[in-house]
Amino acid sequence: MRLSKFFLPVSKDAPADAAIVSHQLMLRTGMIRQNGAGIYSWLPMGFRVLKRIEQIVREEMNRAGAIEMLMPTLQQADLWRESGRYDDYGKEMLRIKDRHERDMLFGPTNEELITDVFRTYVKSYKQLPLNLYHQQWKFRDEVRPRFGVMRGREFLMKDAYSFDLTEDDARASYRKMFCAYLNAFDRMGLTAIPMRADTGPIGGDLSHEFIILADTGESAVFCDKTLLDLPAPGLDLDFNSDLTPIVEERTRFYAATEEMHDEAAFNALPEDRRVSARGIEVGHIFYFGTKYSKPMNAVVQGPDGQMVPVQMGSYGIGVSRLLGAIIEACHDENGIVWPESVAPFDVGLINMRPGDEACDAACETLYAAMTAAGREVLYDDTDDRAGAKFARMDLIGLPWQTTVGPRGLADGKVEVKNRKTGEKHDVKIDDMLAQLKGS
Amino acid sequence: MRLSKFFLPVSKDAPADAAIVSHQLMLRTGMIRQNGAGIYSWLPMGFRVLKRIEQIVREEMNRAGAIEMLMPTLQQADLWRESGRYDDYGKEMLRIKDRHERDMLFGPTNEELITDVFRTYVKSYKQLPLNLYHQQWKFRDEVRPRFGVMRGREFLMKDAYSFDLTEDDARASYRKMFCAYLNAFDRMGLTAIPMRADTGPIGGDLSHEFIILADTGESAVFCDKTLLDLPAPGLDLDFNSDLTPIVEERTRFYAATEEMHDEAAFNALPEDRRVSARGIEVGHIFYFGTKYSKPMNAVVQGPDGQMVPVQMGSYGIGVSRLLGAIIEACHDENGIVWPESVAPFDVGLINMRPGDEACDAACETLYAAMTAAGREVLYDDTDDRAGAKFARMDLIGLPWQTTVGPRGLADGKVEVKNRKTGEKHDVKIDDMLAQLKGS
Repeated sequence: MRLSKFFLPVSKDAPADAAIVSHQLMLRTGMIRQNGAGIYSWLPMGFRVLKRIEQIVREEMNRAGAIEMLMPTLQQADLWRESGRYDDYGKEMLRIKDRHERDMLFGPTNEELITDVFRTYVKSYKQLPLNLYHQQWKFRDEVRPRFGVMRGREFLMKDAYSFDLTEDDARASYRKMFCAYLNAFDRMGLTAIPMRADTGPIGGDLSHEFIILADTGESAVFCDKTLLDLPAPGLDLDFNSDLTPIVEERTRFYAATEEMHDEAAFNALPEDRRVSARGIEVGHIFYFGTKYSKPMNAVVQGPDGQMVPVQMGSYGIGVSRLLGAIIEACHDENGIVWPESVAPFDVGLINMRPGDEACDAACETLYAAMTAAGREVLYDDTDDRAGAKFARMDLIGLPWQTTVGPRGLADGKVEVKNRKTGEKHDVKIDDMLAQLKGS
Repeated sequence: MRLSKFFLPVSKDAPADAAIVSHQLMLRTGMIRQNGAGIYSWLPMGFRVLKRIEQIVREEMNRAGAIEMLMPTLQQADLWRESGRYDDYGKEMLRIKDRHERDMLFGPTNEELITDVFRTYVKSYKQLPLNLYHQQWKFRDEVRPRFGVMRGREFLMKDAYSFDLTEDDARASYRKMFCAYLNAFDRMGLTAIPMRADTGPIGGDLSHEFIILADTGESAVFCDKTLLDLPAPGLDLDFNSDLTPIVEERTRFYAATEEMHDEAAFNALPEDRRVSARGIEVGHIFYFGTKYSKPMNAVVQGPDGQMVPVQMGSYGIGVSRLLGAIIEACHDENGIVWPESVAPFDVGLINMRPGDEACDAACETLYAAMTAAGREVLYDDTDDRAGAKFARMDLIGLPWQTTVGPRGLADGKVEVKNRKTGEKHDVKIDDMLAQLKGS
């Protein structure tokens, strides 16, 4: 993408009303534009990151055997009356009347709707296990939306729903999601710690929040330092194997959010292992058994011929919130430092002197070669002065910068900079082209 | 994807309440599930097709220089008061009050919102031309939603918005979209005919609907038969060249929707070129100049230093509607016949005798080789009887079927069937594997 043809409205000033660094940086880099309280447009660069996160979530859900579909944003109130949540949910639920005065709502979550889909089609245990997920915009009418996309009202959530015949099977499905989440967050460059959590309005008796540590986190969290160094299960994990040991390794150390915190248990840890910090919730998983299937009559025939309510769990990831969370975890004083896996572009190519024949030619050659090698390139072909170009490239935080200027070109070289380490070195253009060709 | 692990709730019976064939087939093949009047869930197979159509639209928009972003579903009423459309739009607009009693709405289209984004960031003609698009769920509260996804209430639309300094430039932007649309629909296996159209609530003086012909079309259309045989501009089109000749070639022949129909002009055509048919609208493009930029004060500085309202156009494609439209155009008495470009899977692999060692082994080998070659495969590994498997595979309409049975295997062969032509022939497994390896 040539910057001159792209839409990247970068601004120098930190907006006054953005309280945390991720919100400031997302506004300054032109990733989002607020359209109302807690409602945002995703401008082209923000959109690109959103899509990359969505794709990582998709790949890890698919790897764990979940199947993607898509439910609508609007739902009928009647389904929520069946589960009893229509009256319980409170003012966070956006209630709507259509032209025929029918009660509808903008889905804040989808347990009822997916249970209705399930009971329509699935009648036998032979069709189980089943895990269906989607990535769709939700709405929760927060009293005070804040922190940009971290606590918006319209937000993109991945929510998965598992269906099993028995509680044992359902717990196995829960473990699959537990492991898939560890892998997904790890791929995004995040260390997410599963913590025992309150189940809130979703219900159930088993629940973990996945928390990343950040000074700007919304809530206090407590955990054993050991957890910070445990590696993710890895992409070669066999999801059909018994995942109990992996889950147990993650749950035998102390970790809890504020609501579930047990001061005595925490203080029993050696002092140098006690981590008391702020955390950002990026995922939340629930096992809630028959909480929805019973009132909604989602029953399946078991091997013994008996009809039993299906065992369910649900599994959420805050996809749009993750952009903020990743920036909170990955930035420095010059701007964002994107992990390679979610960066909007892989490389920033800077032409120091557009209009100079040699610089233009070298940039075009590199741009074509990088693109052909599958790299997403943002080519700064603008007339801005060099200082402004460097500052902007640092601010938007692409993992690699390649700078083409007349002095280096005289030696057949360009400068390559790693945004994270700040390390720069000169590279021969011929070497770079040969390397790109081989990749 | 193994069918035994997939979620494909196929039904034998045509649902009584589905009036047209695409709606019937989408329900029978388990592509969609109705969740309310004009509101649907996209079950896994429907979702896959939706994603492929979305991707074709994306690629053709990007090729034409448009930039993708994403606007929210909910909008503030105040923006629509600025343009004057809040009161004009009528009952099709779903009006919502949030917990603070603020007036909001579920976007039926986005001219106001994008104009607000534009005026926030763009101040100079040097930042033009600009074309921003998104693919987002819209809501129009139709009195009588019907025909499944063809006239739903919640639907996925691609809408693009062009911004130019002058009317000439804006007309050039219009021509780019005109050509991009021809290419996009062509890639989906459709012959879409641009027809002069009424501008309706969007406004403006230049507008074309893109119509495909189908007996079940919602409206009468009239055109010169010559138009049916004109090829699409092609993917190697240079969008920076003057596209006037291509547009003129498409607009010099008679073509109009019912509202714009000129009986005399139509009757002046030789009788064998008069096509009077039913049509389905799959796209609609508008040039409307300063209709929104003037009241909303979206102005840019021109080369002469003067501030002028920006010239705008908007360009819609009914992404979710296209699934219905494609099925209307591509089916036979046995079911759907997907064009290869949008099929949910490329190949259906049928194991005639699961449990038979040789059949299982051959299927696994082929499944792995096809997948490695980049084919999306639906592998029917179920215990259903052969007749049911063939009928289901025909019904869901994957372009190719590969059948593995004990008799063929004795000769080292499988049967390959083309769904569209019905032609079958035996292929040596070794030849197929060699071919896949080379692809």
